[in-house]
Amino acid sequence: MDSRRAEAFSDGVFAVAITVLVFDLLPIGHEALSYRVLAMGWPQYSAYVVSFMTIGIMWINHHTLFGNVRVIDRTLLVLNLLLLMGIVAIPFPTALVAEHLTGPTSSGGRPAAVVYGAVMLVISLCYNAIWVHLILHAGRLGYGDAGRLREAIPRVGPGRRIPRWSIGLGGYLAGTLIAAFWSAAAALAVYGLLALFYLFNHLPDPPPQPGYGTEE
Amino acid sequence: MDSRRAEAFSDGVFAVAITVLVFDLLPIGHEALSYRVLAMGWPQYSAYVVSFMTIGIMWINHHTLFGNVRVIDRTLLVLNLLLLMGIVAIPFPTALVAEHLTGPTSSGGRPAAVVYGAVMLVISLCYNAIWVHLILHAGRLGYGDAGRLREAIPRVGPGRRIPRWSIGLGGYLAGTLIAAFWSAAAALAVYGLLALFYLFNHLPDPPPQPGYGTEE
Amino acid sequence: MDSRRAEAFSDGVFAVAITVLVFDLLPIGHEALSYRVLAMGWPQYSAYVVSFMTIGIMWINHHTLFGNVRVIDRTLLVLNLLLLMGIVAIPFPTALVAEHLTGPTSSGGRPAAVVYGAVMLVISLCYNAIWVHLILHAGRLGYGDAGRLREAIPRVGPGRRIPRWSIGLGGYLAGTLIAAFWSAAAALAVYGLLALFYLFNHLPDPPPQPGYGTEE
Amino acid sequence: MDSRRAEAFSDGVFAVAITVLVFDLLPIGHEALSYRVLAMGWPQYSAYVVSFMTIGIMWINHHTLFGNVRVIDRTLLVLNLLLLMGIVAIPFPTALVAEHLTGPTSSGGRPAAVVYGAVMLVISLCYNAIWVHLILHAGRLGYGDAGRLREAIPRVGPGRRIPRWSIGLGGYLAGTLIAAFWSAAAALAVYGLLALFYLFNHLPDPPPQPGYGTEE
Repeated sequence: MDSRRAEAFSDGVFAVAITVLVFDLLPIGHEALSYRVLAMGWPQYSAYVVSFMTIGIMWINHHTLFGNVRVIDRTLLVLNLLLLMGIVAIPFPTALVAEHLTGPTSSGGRPAAVVYGAVMLVISLCYNAIWVHLILHAGRLGYGDAGRLREAIPRVGPGRRIPRWSIGLGGYLAGTLIAAFWSAAAALAVYGLLALFYLFNHLPDPPPQPGYGTEE
Repeated sequence: MDSRRAEAFSDGVFAVAITVLVFDLLPIGHEALSYRVLAMGWPQYSAYVVSFMTIGIMWINHHTLFGNVRVIDRTLLVLNLLLLMGIVAIPFPTALVAEHLTGPTSSGGRPAAVVYGAVMLVISLCYNAIWVHLILHAGRLGYGDAGRLREAIPRVGPGRRIPRWSIGLGGYLAGTLIAAFWSAAAALAVYGLLALFYLFNHLPDPPPQPGYGTEE
Repeated sequence: MDSRRAEAFSDGVFAVAITVLVFDLLPIGHEALSYRVLAMGWPQYSAYVVSFMTIGIMWINHHTLFGNVRVIDRTLLVLNLLLLMGIVAIPFPTALVAEHLTGPTSSGGRPAAVVYGAVMLVISLCYNAIWVHLILHAGRLGYGDAGRLREAIPRVGPGRRIPRWSIGLGGYLAGTLIAAFWSAAAALAVYGLLALFYLFNHLPDPPPQPGYGTEE
Repeated sequence: MDSRRAEAFSDGVFAVAITVLVFDLLPIGHEALSYRVLAMGWPQYSAYVVSFMTIGIMWINHHTLFGNVRVIDRTLLVLNLLLLMGIVAIPFPTALVAEHLTGPTSSGGRPAAVVYGAVMLVISLCYNAIWVHLILHAGRLGYGDAGRLREAIPRVGPGRRIPRWSIGLGGYLAGTLIAAFWSAAAALAVYGLLALFYLFNHLPDPPPQPGYGTEE
């Protein structure tokens, strides 16, 4: 299968998943509405913003990762499906966190943050599996040569050799453990920082492909 | 990243967000149905029509704005994500206005109209930020030269030099203040007039791109 | 604006609207489930099938209508938005009909069928307005010449000169009146027959466009 | 109609239907949240994973089936609409199975599994109808010659001549009967095995089409 149609399908799934987040806002002010009710919705607004930016950044990175792939094999298709299964699930932990961070049921805040971290961990694992598969089959999948792909693995700062993608795995694991044993708010701060990290420390853009939006 | 895939993703988000508006209609007549119940749903129908046309016109302007962009940089991607975050949120204030404009909870009408205006203000700010970024980096992003883009900033009437995009910012700010301190209905009238203004006073269309729907 | 992006956006809206219909099925068996409960859901299943096929056929006709258009002007964009506003609303009367056709609230069946017919009437009006606009500006919009477009207006049978699109207007008007003054079930039968009519008596397909799916 | 736009529309429907599955997760932990509540949601998680992979694999096979088709006739469009009508309905039996497999209403487990199997049977029938139509009109629809298409019908193992698509029909029929007369859990195991079977025993990929994602 050529990669363009898989990308278009993935784009559609990302677009719907990111829009489903608005359903977490709809219950606010459903019964009675006042400025106080609106102000009490801050966990919903925060969760909406964080999850929206997270899915958005994941979409950008998804494009960057698949931007150089020319042929998609069956393994890559299945890994991509597993990745999308995590993306589509994001509105679920988002709603959990938004609802249980404050209020009478605040005892649920830590389990909610654990679920959020666990979903992110699954997504990180899928990204890494795709990455490893691309490196192992770089030539066949259209990446040219494996060397160029390995070079493209970003590192944290010029002097450090820790590959960037291990940050996501480690960070979300740490956040999940913090949520499980210590504090939901601290875990959420970790998740927010990871989103910011991926926003600024990004994969290098693939070169524009001929015949797709370039004017020659 | 080339602009075509970002446009396709944005199109998908616009398409889903505009369709989510129907969920505001679904509760009408859920329990019992009669012509009287249907007639009492007029705030829902009005909010549906106004928000549908607003998102639709925003989609048209989004296409016009990105129609000339050939390369999208990271800043533009993030600004576009923030813009989409506002677009996707529109069904939330739409539901608030539809529910609280009349009926026993009508005291919530003004807060609802304030939220509606605030979301529109955020969207206006994002459009303006994209506009400024495009002007500052016109050459690199494929707009040819900045002069042509500056020329393309529409003005209100031939004799006035007020750039059109300041109308949106000022208008939605005025509407929000009217909702906060005076009347929800008057604020909604302002929002409706702004939608009509953007419908008729539009950006010039970009020239058709080669290889995309043109028959040569 | 070239027509390809407007078609892609319309496709997205059609795809989401047709999928939203499943939400009408979700309440079935929510509390308790048995074969009897499942059997009592037949109005939901019928409404799902009829509305799904109706939106699907409208999508096919939409493609046929826009398939020859090369340039889309502002009027066509706004007419298309109004058409999509009707398409997106279809899940609302579908839910009304499904819920009120039988059961304790069956007195709502006729108002529900009236709303269904009214939405279809609005959609028919939009299709006709698009059709008239295309004929009036055939040359400028890429249809080649008006004569070819006028020829393409199908007629009901070889001997009759009634243009096909007046069937939709008249049929849905008749169905709505039947629902208002006589019987919901009879009106629904009319709607179903109209869907069948549009399924078999269709617009001629546009010739395949170069560079779009042709191998050449 | 050329096949590319029908594929794009189908992709959109698949993308929305697969994302709607998250609505089955949203009620978990809505009232109170604890690790015990989360653990009790395992039927929801399993149903989400199975249905997600099922729709995903069906999307892959849909692409493979249509990948060689160049022209789509009216019959194929209608068969494809019927197929999509089954795909879009999948979240409904998924919710039934997730809710009634355990808990106080567990008596509904077998009817739920019957509905799941029945929807899958309808989808299988549509796939087979498309397959037969493609073979009967192979030359006109762009498949080159019927012989190549017949060759492409996979068989179960090298020595057996049972065409692969009869597996789906037979398997889902068996699962539905098992659910009706014996056990919901056994039926679900059959459905899971069928998904695994289609994941690994797949149609041969069509050759990449020129001008669509190939760099040349």
